[in-house]
Amino acid sequence: MDTLVLPEEVTQRSREARAKGRRIGFVPTMGYLHEGHLSLVRAARTQTDLCVVSIYVNPTQFGPDEDLEAYPRHMGRDSLLLEKEGVDILFAPSDDAMYPGSDLTRVRVNRITEGLCGAFRPVHFEGVCTIVAKLFHVVEPDVAYFGQKDFQQAVVLRTMARDLLMPIEVRALPTVREEDGLAMSSRNAYLDEEERKAALSLLKALKRGKTLVEEGEKDPEKILLAVRRVLESEPLVGPTDYVEMVNPDTLETLTKPVTLPALLAIAAYVGRARLIDNLYLAKE
Amino acid sequence: MDTLVLPEEVTQRSREARAKGRRIGFVPTMGYLHEGHLSLVRAARTQTDLCVVSIYVNPTQFGPDEDLEAYPRHMGRDSLLLEKEGVDILFAPSDDAMYPGSDLTRVRVNRITEGLCGAFRPVHFEGVCTIVAKLFHVVEPDVAYFGQKDFQQAVVLRTMARDLLMPIEVRALPTVREEDGLAMSSRNAYLDEEERKAALSLLKALKRGKTLVEEGEKDPEKILLAVRRVLESEPLVGPTDYVEMVNPDTLETLTKPVTLPALLAIAAYVGRARLIDNLYLAKE
Repeated sequence: MDTLVLPEEVTQRSREARAKGRRIGFVPTMGYLHEGHLSLVRAARTQTDLCVVSIYVNPTQFGPDEDLEAYPRHMGRDSLLLEKEGVDILFAPSDDAMYPGSDLTRVRVNRITEGLCGAFRPVHFEGVCTIVAKLFHVVEPDVAYFGQKDFQQAVVLRTMARDLLMPIEVRALPTVREEDGLAMSSRNAYLDEEERKAALSLLKALKRGKTLVEEGEKDPEKILLAVRRVLESEPLVGPTDYVEMVNPDTLETLTKPVTLPALLAIAAYVGRARLIDNLYLAKE
Repeated sequence: MDTLVLPEEVTQRSREARAKGRRIGFVPTMGYLHEGHLSLVRAARTQTDLCVVSIYVNPTQFGPDEDLEAYPRHMGRDSLLLEKEGVDILFAPSDDAMYPGSDLTRVRVNRITEGLCGAFRPVHFEGVCTIVAKLFHVVEPDVAYFGQKDFQQAVVLRTMARDLLMPIEVRALPTVREEDGLAMSSRNAYLDEEERKAALSLLKALKRGKTLVEEGEKDPEKILLAVRRVLESEPLVGPTDYVEMVNPDTLETLTKPVTLPALLAIAAYVGRARLIDNLYLAKE
């Protein structure tokens, strides 16, 4: 594995590979890697010929009151993990490399960034789209991999790539979970032992909603009420940003009668960790 | 010359050329070509190995009261001109190809789009940046060519490319003028015979300002007043959008005492044609 810090070196390597007919797979991350990230790396390794992973904690996708400073980092461990997975290139740029000179340009996706996490993190998706556009320009991948835990992010970035005619396929892969069901997240590092247990109620709540849908409930209000009740029964689950049922393509809120496919999604605080999780409810 | 209408065909041709070590030069245009465009094509032909020209009248860079419908078009003549110049690929996409499916994504450059033309055409530069980002993704050029008549546009697009880490050099080439000095523009087609003569006062006014600077005048107010007087002495020159003296890098308004380099720029209506012109006043 080669660790590169200069964007132009990465572009050169990507172009050399493409000139030889190789396809480039790319996994952008903020580091502090877990099995969720590694599942994306393995998909890239299997499905493409050159596997590029980036580690960069992007400041512009954090709001002023969010956890940019606290966000967990461990480059040494991450690097070893990626080496073991057979990654070809680790791109670990500096802030200066990613935001050179003027920082006047922003990429924005409208409408589908307004609900869910976008409603509570007003600068988040503009920061995500801008940094991912930059990373895409540096890496020029054929396929880019994202996790379905950040479902809205994947939809937004797929829309960005299509709208801007980037010759890049955005693939979203299933959420990887701990044995007890907790969705893997770098932010799980914020949880103490009690909070770790309480965090399980997110999946439990989602499953309650899924069961109701399977039993034929068509009223989204009733489904979401039942989901909220499960969360509220756990005292360590703090304020809930949202509990929503949306169309997985348009991210529009579903109305009665609920139709499938649907996405049932939660964002809630457990201690200082803002956790998100979702279940995709497929057509029949 | 091959005329291509599908973005993916252009990307493929560009990548095939790059794989052979060829450099790609790109001239994006809205058609109705004149010698200004052709000077860019000749530069691309000389300085790079594969010359791609696009012709696309982009609706999103026109405001609701602007001249999108009236904008002159003549694909047949344009195609012959480009063929004669030895262009390799003419990319002439449809609206559906450039705006497929959802149209939710916009690329915005802040601050330097607020003054000059940006102050009078509020959606213009967001439309320009978005469409040029798309064209850059399709063509993947090494060098892209723009005219200095649209000085602000070139600065904005260079900033966009740098900020977004696009591996593309944006080159701006000198304004090409008619024999009598009128800056070439597709919009000159709107002028009748009398207006055509009156339009010369733009360059005359700019030259008056340049002379004052050369004579040592350091007060921008006095310089701009003299420039405006020349414009006002021509009855067929209608409302002036702006007469400005700015720093050519930051596009910030110059204050007393004026320092060089400076850009002296005008936007004014002559009949229904909104014309722009500028002079770059070099250091010493």
